[in-house]
Amino acid sequence: MTAQVASAFDDELLAVLRQIVGERVTTTAAILDRHGRDESFHPSMPPDAVVFAHATDEVSRVVTACAARGVPIIPFGTGTSLEGHVAALQGGVCVDMSEMNQILAVNAEDLDCRVQPGVTRKQLNTHLRDTGLFFPIDPGADASLGGMAATRASGTNAVRYGTMRENVLSLEVVMADGRIIRTARRSKKSSAGYDLTRLFVGSEGTLGLITEVTVRLYGIPEATSAAVCAFPDMESAVNTVIMTIQSGIPVARIELLDALQMDACNKYSDLDYALQPTLFFEFHGSEAGVFEQVDQVKGIAGEFGGDDFKWATKAEDRTKLWQARHDAYYAGIALRPGGKGIATDVCVPISKLAECILETQADIAESGLIAPIVGHVGDGNFHLVIVVDPDDADEMARAEALNERMVMRALAMDGTCTGEHGVGYGKMGFLEAEHGEAISVMRDLKRALDPNNIMNPGKIVRV
Amino acid sequence: MTAQVASAFDDELLAVLRQIVGERVTTTAAILDRHGRDESFHPSMPPDAVVFAHATDEVSRVVTACAARGVPIIPFGTGTSLEGHVAALQGGVCVDMSEMNQILAVNAEDLDCRVQPGVTRKQLNTHLRDTGLFFPIDPGADASLGGMAATRASGTNAVRYGTMRENVLSLEVVMADGRIIRTARRSKKSSAGYDLTRLFVGSEGTLGLITEVTVRLYGIPEATSAAVCAFPDMESAVNTVIMTIQSGIPVARIELLDALQMDACNKYSDLDYALQPTLFFEFHGSEAGVFEQVDQVKGIAGEFGGDDFKWATKAEDRTKLWQARHDAYYAGIALRPGGKGIATDVCVPISKLAECILETQADIAESGLIAPIVGHVGDGNFHLVIVVDPDDADEMARAEALNERMVMRALAMDGTCTGEHGVGYGKMGFLEAEHGEAISVMRDLKRALDPNNIMNPGKIVRV
Repeated sequence: MTAQVASAFDDELLAVLRQIVGERVTTTAAILDRHGRDESFHPSMPPDAVVFAHATDEVSRVVTACAARGVPIIPFGTGTSLEGHVAALQGGVCVDMSEMNQILAVNAEDLDCRVQPGVTRKQLNTHLRDTGLFFPIDPGADASLGGMAATRASGTNAVRYGTMRENVLSLEVVMADGRIIRTARRSKKSSAGYDLTRLFVGSEGTLGLITEVTVRLYGIPEATSAAVCAFPDMESAVNTVIMTIQSGIPVARIELLDALQMDACNKYSDLDYALQPTLFFEFHGSEAGVFEQVDQVKGIAGEFGGDDFKWATKAEDRTKLWQARHDAYYAGIALRPGGKGIATDVCVPISKLAECILETQADIAESGLIAPIVGHVGDGNFHLVIVVDPDDADEMARAEALNERMVMRALAMDGTCTGEHGVGYGKMGFLEAEHGEAISVMRDLKRALDPNNIMNPGKIVRV
Repeated sequence: MTAQVASAFDDELLAVLRQIVGERVTTTAAILDRHGRDESFHPSMPPDAVVFAHATDEVSRVVTACAARGVPIIPFGTGTSLEGHVAALQGGVCVDMSEMNQILAVNAEDLDCRVQPGVTRKQLNTHLRDTGLFFPIDPGADASLGGMAATRASGTNAVRYGTMRENVLSLEVVMADGRIIRTARRSKKSSAGYDLTRLFVGSEGTLGLITEVTVRLYGIPEATSAAVCAFPDMESAVNTVIMTIQSGIPVARIELLDALQMDACNKYSDLDYALQPTLFFEFHGSEAGVFEQVDQVKGIAGEFGGDDFKWATKAEDRTKLWQARHDAYYAGIALRPGGKGIATDVCVPISKLAECILETQADIAESGLIAPIVGHVGDGNFHLVIVVDPDDADEMARAEALNERMVMRALAMDGTCTGEHGVGYGKMGFLEAEHGEAISVMRDLKRALDPNNIMNPGKIVRV
């Protein structure tokens, strides 16, 4: 268990922060507590103060004030991360971006837009509704775009549209010394120098604070079709996925839920799907293109015993289907009243997916734990939600062992310890196992851009 | 004019290099001269020695030996860059990767492969011929994959398949102190720490030497169709491009050549196309999908007066068509016997493309220079090849002014000073104009990973 360390925060710094943001700084215990926790089992580690920022210049001044005193700064979006990303391990000032939620520009002709970091994905898509465009990246939660950029988020659409790595065009970032930079221009590609955009995407607030995000948008497809298909067993479902991807069929979504997760979703979202390993599909394209994709995928699924496609043809049925999928994490936790989720994910080359999932299922059975499997399997990415009682030490130990075996298995298959949840402080040990000597380069970068280790310290790499 | 500075290279280092690579180190003047120049007008700045590397471990030992003496190291692939990337501005040891040309693994099931850095794009595609897969990134030259990664190369297929930024999965890199790292695993996505892969892609040898490249592959499309279409004027051609992209039509290639470039290609490749602004198209997909795309694009082109589509239905005709396009640079230079090319490129948001090209055309007319325009216009990226006599100071000054006006125009449109050629030492000034304060962060990164400034010094950023 990681213990919290005290920072040099004091009344003098509080007074300085008040000069910068007026009443928008607080030390109220309940607010501090809420900002020290995410949606996982990790206990709250509250910051010393929370600032509700309204402007980049303010953020820069807050950072400068903290930097002068060596006080840590932790950015906060919607608090929906899963690896303790927002825990104030060394105290400090939490900069809550939720009130920096303006959509600054929609360049419909260029298929991009520029937003403040507190704008959430649903807010953006509501705003875009009349433009014929949408923003595809959809982690389970209605996360903020700043947080999604900081954690390199993805979701169900990533198999077709990529992750935040592919969809962030440019960022505005406040550096550890208060400098304000813009990482790139708005052109679709560039060879002009080091790729600062990608350096900050996924850096989890450890290299700088994201104060603006420019992302790519896409035309709403002419036709959309979604379906649910149950399979006789896990292997058949996964092999359907593997063959679909290897065939180059441009599915928009291909999601796997095991029988336990289907049970959880049925209960949580009042549905009545079969309690079997199940794939959720979505197809985007022209009318003819969607028809062609559906035809190909039905053919593949049929070969593996998945021939009962339940179609969601109306938009509201599709919304219900995907909301159930997005709520899978909450549904999983609800399997056990009072339980907390250890949500972990790995990602492997697609050829290893069946082996990785089946061996993990055997581990779960042996562990005696409640742990539904759900995944963005088109990318080779899947999740376990281990539903635990954090006060039960034996159970926590078994959960930890299960997680470790899954991660080590993924690494042995040339996969990664996290496909989309990120590192926070929960996966720092696994990060070292994954990267070996490259960790020393990550440390060099951290020291170069944050020499006093004040930017979300204790996350990603130890320095 | 940049003057060459002497390095600390001496006979003792030469002896050490001989211990590492035996006879594969040379100081022969002609070989040094060839390794100090690329395909542009930049004069040769030869290194002190050239090492022909055969293995990562060798490269690491060479770097360590150079580092101990503060001697610069410059990586060399095929020498086809355009901004003086390989010029030994401060002397030093050139590490030629062309003999590290093994294809190490083709993971057909995972649509990826791992190669040594000297493997060229044509070599790889020849090797892949029987797998049903291909590697799409195609700069004009038959460049090496290490060089393409180092310069964040793209080409005609980028509008559909992305650039090296999107298509490199992982790199092996030798750092400035000889450490050997691997930047990532082979999974399609990851949130595991800083994106080292993207940091080295486009770093032009200034942060480390790339010794292995893992790239994504794609299934050869079921159907491919290519056509050439002339337009009454430049504006009509560009507006066809803009509307095609804004409509979300997934064209595989959409290339613009102005009337002068068409004349150059006709002469160089023995063709007889009309001397008008012309688009080269390629469509990939299923039979039905290609038909649909063609139908849509013909409709758009027709609206702008481009209704004479010349189809290349046979594979060999398509090869001839695209070879002519890939040879455009050489064709341009051949317009003036003995001339040298100042090849420059910019990239702007697609909505600004017509304005940017038309204003640039007006500048060319006013300059009196020979400068065909050709571009990967689907990405908002286009090139000028200004064909000059480098010994004519007045002409060089006019060429420089023309280039500067084009770059500054692109920057004012929120575009970039180079879409795909990179910075080398030719565009360092423009890089500062583009990035402002962010240049200081690039400098921080350079200092952190190469504290003694021995990795291709004098390129990208000044330290």
